[in-house]
Amino acid sequence: MRFAVTYHIRSDAASIEARAQGIAVEQSVEMPLGGIQDSAVLVDIVGQVDGIADIGNDLFAVRIMLAGATIGEDAGQFLNMLFGNTSLHEDVLLHDAEIPGTLRLACGGPRHGIAGLRQRLGVPHRAFTGSALKPQGLSPDQLGGLAEQFASGGLDFVKDDHGLADQSYSRFASRVRSCAAGISRGTKITGHPTRYIPSLTGNLDQLRTQAALARNEGLDCVMVAPMISGFSNVQALVADFPDMAFFAHPSMGGLRISPGLLIGKLFRLIGCDAVVFPSHGGRFGYSPAMCLALAENARGNDPGCPALPVPAGGMTIDRTAEILDFYGPDTMLLIGGNLLLARERIAGEAAAFARAVADHTFTRG
Amino acid sequence: MRFAVTYHIRSDAASIEARAQGIAVEQSVEMPLGGIQDSAVLVDIVGQVDGIADIGNDLFAVRIMLAGATIGEDAGQFLNMLFGNTSLHEDVLLHDAEIPGTLRLACGGPRHGIAGLRQRLGVPHRAFTGSALKPQGLSPDQLGGLAEQFASGGLDFVKDDHGLADQSYSRFASRVRSCAAGISRGTKITGHPTRYIPSLTGNLDQLRTQAALARNEGLDCVMVAPMISGFSNVQALVADFPDMAFFAHPSMGGLRISPGLLIGKLFRLIGCDAVVFPSHGGRFGYSPAMCLALAENARGNDPGCPALPVPAGGMTIDRTAEILDFYGPDTMLLIGGNLLLARERIAGEAAAFARAVADHTFTRG
Repeated sequence: MRFAVTYHIRSDAASIEARAQGIAVEQSVEMPLGGIQDSAVLVDIVGQVDGIADIGNDLFAVRIMLAGATIGEDAGQFLNMLFGNTSLHEDVLLHDAEIPGTLRLACGGPRHGIAGLRQRLGVPHRAFTGSALKPQGLSPDQLGGLAEQFASGGLDFVKDDHGLADQSYSRFASRVRSCAAGISRGTKITGHPTRYIPSLTGNLDQLRTQAALARNEGLDCVMVAPMISGFSNVQALVADFPDMAFFAHPSMGGLRISPGLLIGKLFRLIGCDAVVFPSHGGRFGYSPAMCLALAENARGNDPGCPALPVPAGGMTIDRTAEILDFYGPDTMLLIGGNLLLARERIAGEAAAFARAVADHTFTRG
Repeated sequence: MRFAVTYHIRSDAASIEARAQGIAVEQSVEMPLGGIQDSAVLVDIVGQVDGIADIGNDLFAVRIMLAGATIGEDAGQFLNMLFGNTSLHEDVLLHDAEIPGTLRLACGGPRHGIAGLRQRLGVPHRAFTGSALKPQGLSPDQLGGLAEQFASGGLDFVKDDHGLADQSYSRFASRVRSCAAGISRGTKITGHPTRYIPSLTGNLDQLRTQAALARNEGLDCVMVAPMISGFSNVQALVADFPDMAFFAHPSMGGLRISPGLLIGKLFRLIGCDAVVFPSHGGRFGYSPAMCLALAENARGNDPGCPALPVPAGGMTIDRTAEILDFYGPDTMLLIGGNLLLARERIAGEAAAFARAVADHTFTRG
């Protein structure tokens, strides 16, 4: 059984057939076909060019059929066969990929996704709100105090900044205890079940230890960065902690892989229930069309259930209506730095943000 | 204690100061400085722009001092703070980085490196030879037969193709047993201690299981792909298997990180003893200058001992002299597909390759 992979290649028309055939070989047998003595390998394993389309501006979309048997059940091996060596060519972008059946079964996609998060938060219809604990360098007590302010404002989610790890000035265990306690104090005031999302870092052993610590603090959401932790390790962690909802951070995601594929489709494949991405109009350069495609991919339901798109990266409260109209209610608005600018008025600003989302009337979508 | 990181940014002169300051903030506190209430964070943690140089063609080299305290002892967190979010900007390349002292100690660099590999192979001076087991799709028996032919030709190293994982048609355990046996049969003929290098894949548990299987077969070299397995996991694996020499494969290394930094400097930091990279003049586009810088970085000795550069990616036997003159003798020549084209004459071609390296007289370097 084969699956289709699409690459965008910058090339002239005269060379594109050879380039396409080169990628078909590179991402399968990686050797001159003349050296292959086993005819079954030539028939069943060697990649096949299925189509070449001129999409303008010296770009060609090349569709290649790869053999599912080369992947098996490991999400890391999927990346390896999709783009391992071809990523080293500067003029090729991995645009899209089908997910082979065996891998789809082995990974399973989100366990909780949008519906599970709606149930946990008691938020049946509206978009979610979130903010981030920062800056890097604060002590666990300071971060816990900040978490309390966000929760006092009635936000749905308060996540660690992805730079928070297990630093000497703020050890993971102390931070999680302090922030979980801060959130608890805040939720006692509001009655709203705000969730704290600690960021997990390190090797698979450390990811497991940290996830267990989070569970012991009564938490049911965590964040991972699949491009740093490795796809295979996130796949294993999700299987080990089926009760946890996983948020994906795009850190180190700036490969020449379409964000719609990497963040929208592949992060959800390995079990992430919510995917954070830099939305258009913020600090990063993704186009509105790419953001929408990414969000739609994330909300797919095969395998697993729809995952929650989390547009972020320099969002501001005054854009709440625009962002909601663009992404619709199955979305979490994540506003970090812009809320933190309020300093001693953070809880009040958080409350205004929460209210803006709750009161929004959609003009489209 | 701060360490310097250099980025190359495509920008106009009018915006470069703001871009540089933006990256200094993004890779440290990731929030508006006006929202930071703790003065110690402003002084000790926020990234500082240390210099901006116009390097022509609308490119600027920006040097930023980041705080070592944000990294700690985890190599994955190092990547996260070096380039996590900034990788999402299409016009920034991570050009170079100093390695903070705590991380240097925690990782330790190569344990065996060039000297250890020279001792194992009994090759005190000349360059090393290597080839690769492929294509993808062969059975363990077929791969074992191929390994025997390469070893019969007297090559130093025979590595798995990086696409070989734990597929249903060739399970890791069977393949490693079969290839180790094939190599043994070959070395009985030649008396030369050819080493087999299996490729390890999957999550950290699977990497450990596979490394232990390799050790049980009497092997002392393995290959990993740090960009797929994750830096933190390779760091852990190296610590767990100090007797193994680690070869690094560049799969998925096509980030906007300078290959000289990523492959030459960072792969060795986390303990890889030899680093495979696509050499100029083959199937990939690295320049001769980049290849040389990468090789020189790999041969650094801080931390750990010099690692072995392994130029590869479409090398041919007729280029042996040129490649040796370019890289010098502390090098392994890795020729895969070109040897496999010989089909039933593989052992003979391998012997010719081994002889060409042994007989080479250097004209420079």
